[in-house]
Amino acid sequence: MFDFTPTEQQKLVVKSVKDWCERNLPYERVRKMDDKGHPYPKEIVQGLGGLGIIMGPVPVEHGGSGIDWQTQSLIAEIIGYYDPTIATAAGLMAVETGWGYTVDRYCSNTVREKYIKPALKGEKFVGIATTEPTGGSDVAGFKSTAKRSGDEWIINGEKTFISGTEECEKWGGGFWINVRTGPIIPEAPHRNMTSFFLPIDADGVEVQEPYKDAGRMAISTGGFTMKDVKLSDEYRVGEVDKGFYATMEGFDNARIMISASCIGVIQRVLDDALPYIKERKVFGRPLAKFEAIQFEAAEIYMQMEALRLMVQKSAWMQDKRYQEEGLLKKTSEATTFTPTDVAKWISMVKWIGPSLACDAAYKAMIWFGAAGYTKEYVFEMAWRGNMSYVVGAEGGLNIQKIVVARELLGKEYIPYK
Amino acid sequence: MFDFTPTEQQKLVVKSVKDWCERNLPYERVRKMDDKGHPYPKEIVQGLGGLGIIMGPVPVEHGGSGIDWQTQSLIAEIIGYYDPTIATAAGLMAVETGWGYTVDRYCSNTVREKYIKPALKGEKFVGIATTEPTGGSDVAGFKSTAKRSGDEWIINGEKTFISGTEECEKWGGGFWINVRTGPIIPEAPHRNMTSFFLPIDADGVEVQEPYKDAGRMAISTGGFTMKDVKLSDEYRVGEVDKGFYATMEGFDNARIMISASCIGVIQRVLDDALPYIKERKVFGRPLAKFEAIQFEAAEIYMQMEALRLMVQKSAWMQDKRYQEEGLLKKTSEATTFTPTDVAKWISMVKWIGPSLACDAAYKAMIWFGAAGYTKEYVFEMAWRGNMSYVVGAEGGLNIQKIVVARELLGKEYIPYK
Amino acid sequence: MFDFTPTEQQKLVVKSVKDWCERNLPYERVRKMDDKGHPYPKEIVQGLGGLGIIMGPVPVEHGGSGIDWQTQSLIAEIIGYYDPTIATAAGLMAVETGWGYTVDRYCSNTVREKYIKPALKGEKFVGIATTEPTGGSDVAGFKSTAKRSGDEWIINGEKTFISGTEECEKWGGGFWINVRTGPIIPEAPHRNMTSFFLPIDADGVEVQEPYKDAGRMAISTGGFTMKDVKLSDEYRVGEVDKGFYATMEGFDNARIMISASCIGVIQRVLDDALPYIKERKVFGRPLAKFEAIQFEAAEIYMQMEALRLMVQKSAWMQDKRYQEEGLLKKTSEATTFTPTDVAKWISMVKWIGPSLACDAAYKAMIWFGAAGYTKEYVFEMAWRGNMSYVVGAEGGLNIQKIVVARELLGKEYIPYK
Amino acid sequence: MFDFTPTEQQKLVVKSVKDWCERNLPYERVRKMDDKGHPYPKEIVQGLGGLGIIMGPVPVEHGGSGIDWQTQSLIAEIIGYYDPTIATAAGLMAVETGWGYTVDRYCSNTVREKYIKPALKGEKFVGIATTEPTGGSDVAGFKSTAKRSGDEWIINGEKTFISGTEECEKWGGGFWINVRTGPIIPEAPHRNMTSFFLPIDADGVEVQEPYKDAGRMAISTGGFTMKDVKLSDEYRVGEVDKGFYATMEGFDNARIMISASCIGVIQRVLDDALPYIKERKVFGRPLAKFEAIQFEAAEIYMQMEALRLMVQKSAWMQDKRYQEEGLLKKTSEATTFTPTDVAKWISMVKWIGPSLACDAAYKAMIWFGAAGYTKEYVFEMAWRGNMSYVVGAEGGLNIQKIVVARELLGKEYIPYK
Repeated sequence: MFDFTPTEQQKLVVKSVKDWCERNLPYERVRKMDDKGHPYPKEIVQGLGGLGIIMGPVPVEHGGSGIDWQTQSLIAEIIGYYDPTIATAAGLMAVETGWGYTVDRYCSNTVREKYIKPALKGEKFVGIATTEPTGGSDVAGFKSTAKRSGDEWIINGEKTFISGTEECEKWGGGFWINVRTGPIIPEAPHRNMTSFFLPIDADGVEVQEPYKDAGRMAISTGGFTMKDVKLSDEYRVGEVDKGFYATMEGFDNARIMISASCIGVIQRVLDDALPYIKERKVFGRPLAKFEAIQFEAAEIYMQMEALRLMVQKSAWMQDKRYQEEGLLKKTSEATTFTPTDVAKWISMVKWIGPSLACDAAYKAMIWFGAAGYTKEYVFEMAWRGNMSYVVGAEGGLNIQKIVVARELLGKEYIPYK
Repeated sequence: MFDFTPTEQQKLVVKSVKDWCERNLPYERVRKMDDKGHPYPKEIVQGLGGLGIIMGPVPVEHGGSGIDWQTQSLIAEIIGYYDPTIATAAGLMAVETGWGYTVDRYCSNTVREKYIKPALKGEKFVGIATTEPTGGSDVAGFKSTAKRSGDEWIINGEKTFISGTEECEKWGGGFWINVRTGPIIPEAPHRNMTSFFLPIDADGVEVQEPYKDAGRMAISTGGFTMKDVKLSDEYRVGEVDKGFYATMEGFDNARIMISASCIGVIQRVLDDALPYIKERKVFGRPLAKFEAIQFEAAEIYMQMEALRLMVQKSAWMQDKRYQEEGLLKKTSEATTFTPTDVAKWISMVKWIGPSLACDAAYKAMIWFGAAGYTKEYVFEMAWRGNMSYVVGAEGGLNIQKIVVARELLGKEYIPYK
Repeated sequence: MFDFTPTEQQKLVVKSVKDWCERNLPYERVRKMDDKGHPYPKEIVQGLGGLGIIMGPVPVEHGGSGIDWQTQSLIAEIIGYYDPTIATAAGLMAVETGWGYTVDRYCSNTVREKYIKPALKGEKFVGIATTEPTGGSDVAGFKSTAKRSGDEWIINGEKTFISGTEECEKWGGGFWINVRTGPIIPEAPHRNMTSFFLPIDADGVEVQEPYKDAGRMAISTGGFTMKDVKLSDEYRVGEVDKGFYATMEGFDNARIMISASCIGVIQRVLDDALPYIKERKVFGRPLAKFEAIQFEAAEIYMQMEALRLMVQKSAWMQDKRYQEEGLLKKTSEATTFTPTDVAKWISMVKWIGPSLACDAAYKAMIWFGAAGYTKEYVFEMAWRGNMSYVVGAEGGLNIQKIVVARELLGKEYIPYK
Repeated sequence: MFDFTPTEQQKLVVKSVKDWCERNLPYERVRKMDDKGHPYPKEIVQGLGGLGIIMGPVPVEHGGSGIDWQTQSLIAEIIGYYDPTIATAAGLMAVETGWGYTVDRYCSNTVREKYIKPALKGEKFVGIATTEPTGGSDVAGFKSTAKRSGDEWIINGEKTFISGTEECEKWGGGFWINVRTGPIIPEAPHRNMTSFFLPIDADGVEVQEPYKDAGRMAISTGGFTMKDVKLSDEYRVGEVDKGFYATMEGFDNARIMISASCIGVIQRVLDDALPYIKERKVFGRPLAKFEAIQFEAAEIYMQMEALRLMVQKSAWMQDKRYQEEGLLKKTSEATTFTPTDVAKWISMVKWIGPSLACDAAYKAMIWFGAAGYTKEYVFEMAWRGNMSYVVGAEGGLNIQKIVVARELLGKEYIPYK
């Protein structure tokens, strides 16, 4: 039955996360992160770890909280609200939750004990490193390789535009990587790839200087090279030559988190902007009484509620999928979704979420005039920060549209084929 | 708990409506209506009445089906799909269901027996007539009056842009009207209004020629004058001087129906257009492989799903509201919404629904090129028909935005005060 | 030197056309055309012919007025103003001027005497018939052929979505056609095509029933088949196997005319709508005082002025091109534009002109509410009529974008190659 | 006659400015400014001064170059191209040219000798300081006052969000201010204001710390307080109590410059982005072949050309206005524009220029993906920099729309009255 009521437990979790953020992520703290840049402050991550909400869906028996994706989305929304640059929510929590959960699902006990369990507490960093200089969304551009040699793999290649390289170096941890373990098949370049968990301190890994960018300051973006890096087979994640599918699963999970956090950003923009436009008078009347402004506010609100429902449905679909696979307890009558059904929804929310968040901040800046452009308000950092997720992090805008169109029309209509 | 699964009963109802429409509302039938103009074909209405879905929410004890608004929305979606001009869905079913239900809630047994019961079967027409030459959304412009004279009321005034005047004349029936029963209070012009059910054949009612318009052909739009029309107090609907509130309730119900039918329109546009763009080759490749076209298709799909969720939530809120009032059986834990909470959501969907439907048809016309402009396809009539609900029927675009902004910001920020 | 002043002569021409339209194309006349459908009233065309403005650029020595394209654009704007469905301006005058001029440039004296000269007076019709069931913008889809046989050509094939078939049949006249005179070269399908002037009454031509469409009523759209039509070589237009280039020239000229007429449509929408929104009060204030409405009006105005400048520049570029070719007298220092430079500009205005006109009418309908949807105002027919030029006539929206992108980026980036 | 050819002299000026910029404003220099922040590098300003293009329209007899506004616009375009943050073009050159010219027109010889002449050479700074904490566009909010006391004026008040406070302090110079010299008239708050030129080092002026902002780094934004500042009457600019009109003239001039520089920004975005999208392959084909990208490029190009024509016309109108006033030599037949005609056009270009520039950069960032977000390319600083002119500098977006609507509809439809 269609129902739009959070459970009592969801309300409780949300409340406790809100309380924690209220104390630990006030505006000044977030602005300080923005000013100071990376590495992201570890104590915040430890705090979130303490709440059990980093990689919340990791099963209780693996040290996680075993919460469903819908609840985790409600949490991500709160984090996005308190840090509307979404450095915390997306750059950090989405990455760690989406990818950490997926690592945990497929990894060996060794990796779980050494990396996932500490990361659950905010002690180590778990990230994703797929993009290479010759390809991000286009898997065919991936050139990094892993060659088997006895029980070991020898890995060579380069990864770029990776979130959290500096954090990973400082705190310890590693990255999900996806590399070629067989020849490239031109008509199916996603095959013959295998995923590994790469500890950042493995011999042969060299981390580069982080990029300077438009405003994703609190979380570093960087790259690293891998030169004859030796990893035992225990570091393999998932099946040999099937790395693509598990990687897609990781993206799905991370993308839900990012989109959920964008709901929080938009709510924050409204919560910070509406009192001002109601108060501030121009030409003898509050800004809020000018239709050009109030209609924009109404539109932002409407779009936020649409996004919220779409994220909730996406997370619910992902929960159903995991229920089908026996990873989550069934909550209602069976509804079956294929991974591509779910991917279509997730691409829809990743497509619109960051754009709407960026746009809401853009409009609020205009309402505030010159003041909106300054660092006295939250808007300019929300505008700059969310742009990072519009352009590309966890898959750029146009890639999401291609996925939606592919699922709507069929694979044979992919535009580049 | 958030849940997005239709119930088994909803699935059954939807299926039976679909089957009926498949047989009774094929494309040729709808195009014929478009060509022939009003009155709307009575046998279709009788058919829908036979299914028990006109004014479905009217309680069983009053002869209705007692179905909830969410289910009724799913039905409206199907009707919009089969007649994407939404003449059937909006001009007819939304009007009859939204207003018929509300009449039934507040009317005397006389009115119920003489008008609602036959209308439930598609034998008579029940509509809404609020707009006057000097005011539609602006209640202050209403000049029609009812004066009490013993047990009777004497009504004078004029109503314009009324859906279904010709149908009402031919089939019998009447209109919800809202007229002044006391002096206009400049700062609260919505007070001192009372609602009545006006039989179209009452002495003193003169119906005018229907308007010629851009394409709302299958349902007539017209006006009528009321000259010393005498109605007994049994024709009063709701309390004296409190007509405004019940009228708003009627609008809420009708607007949900219209917005729900727009989902069906968009689905129809996609279902009719996608096979064509996949088939039709230009410059050696199917139209569907051109990103400009496939991304528009993806966007239409995404917007349709957003609209669908928002309509479902709006209808669910309306159900909760009626559950609170004891008119529907409670289905889950209590969630309380005020009428204005619900109105905000309903205005959001009325705002975006017709625009999105109109826009989807507009885009499909462009994909089809010159052929899309002809009467060989459904798009041009969907484009023309839905525009009627963008411009005004059941409240125009800007009025919906004003309602959303008012609920978001507070009454003191209404732009015209 | 940059200058934006019309010449005295241009002012005079504009004034005389305005005066004529004021008398001969009042609203009621245009609405009557809309109601009655095709054929387009011949007396209007004769009147325009009498003014010397149909095919105005045809040289004086050929019986034309020898006016430049910029002046002809100013005229088209006036025609679009008085008949904002653009049936007269685009469906008729743009077609006749753009194609008639181009026929005249390349045709034999026989064709000139028999068809162009009468058409200049509005006595016969000259149109364009390139589209075929298997291709409009995509030349590769053209299947019609002309085979040489002594001094004759034997033509077979079918043409669809042709403006003016019924007018042509009734008044006499013919169409520019472009047919294969050699094998199709897959990598250059535009080669081996030759243009002819096809008299509609030639033996073997069979004209089909006009299409029913969304509102291009005053000018017919139809198709015809050609079965062993014999034409003497005098009916060839331009060089053998080089028909593509002359056809492109014809499109350029017709597209300038259409875009120019759209300026007039927008001006008309504003002139008809602004007094109403200033007068009509809602909630105690004129509609014009609501920012949502006045900002839309301001945006329409701004877009109209942008379009006007772009059309003027396009026409000026076309004039420069013809000056270079010695067909027009040089007016200022040499500025050289290649045909593709000019085509890029013309595609820009054809891209935005009809869309802006359609959108202006759409917005005005919303301002007027339910009244805007009726046939009492000009907006609904402007909305329906201009849509015909958005979807396809003289090249659809997306084709124009492809042309602009091709000229901006280079031929090697055409999306379908 | 309509003509779109630059004069030979304009071509020469443009070429010399381009050459200078090529040598003195390479990308690295501009990026360094962005990194280092204010004060803006004086040597650049001196260089521009050396070319005679700061305040170019100042008459030769006052030490300026006496060039017209259309040529000055072509120059501003070049500057915007080389520094697409528009710190140089708008923050600096538009401010100095627009306001410096207007000061020069109305000031005493003392001010001219001490401030304008050095500023013409880039030795001193001349800016504008109208905004106050309680009002920017809304003149009624201005509280600063000047009281006459013999031949002196005593000035008190505060100015905020002023471009160039730090530059002014370092280099010497001052600001156009507009203060109350009589009681506020509620229904005409723009009356009783007088303009002065305020030397930044006048006793009683206290300059505040510059704001931290989103990315207008190379030019400072700050505020200052004025406490019993004494200025002789020689520092008055224009007539007593008539300061508003001269201030509007200054805004007109500065706004043309800003809008012109935005053309350059867009051209730069295209010039930097197009080679990359043609080169960079994704999924086996260059980005430029994807319609979603190439159509956006085509749209940016089209909008740039529309903006260019509108700026050229605005500048030409301003030239005509100054020709009428005898300040510029007449160049063609008389065309008369009122100041409000010109203001309408200028507000149109100020409205769309910065938004289009910001949006072009936003789109290019998306094409470049993660790389587009870094400081390796020009886009992110163009995006951040131009936003400053969207939100407010020289009049925010909505103010421009209000001006256009006011001129289109009439003063009585100003939305706040």
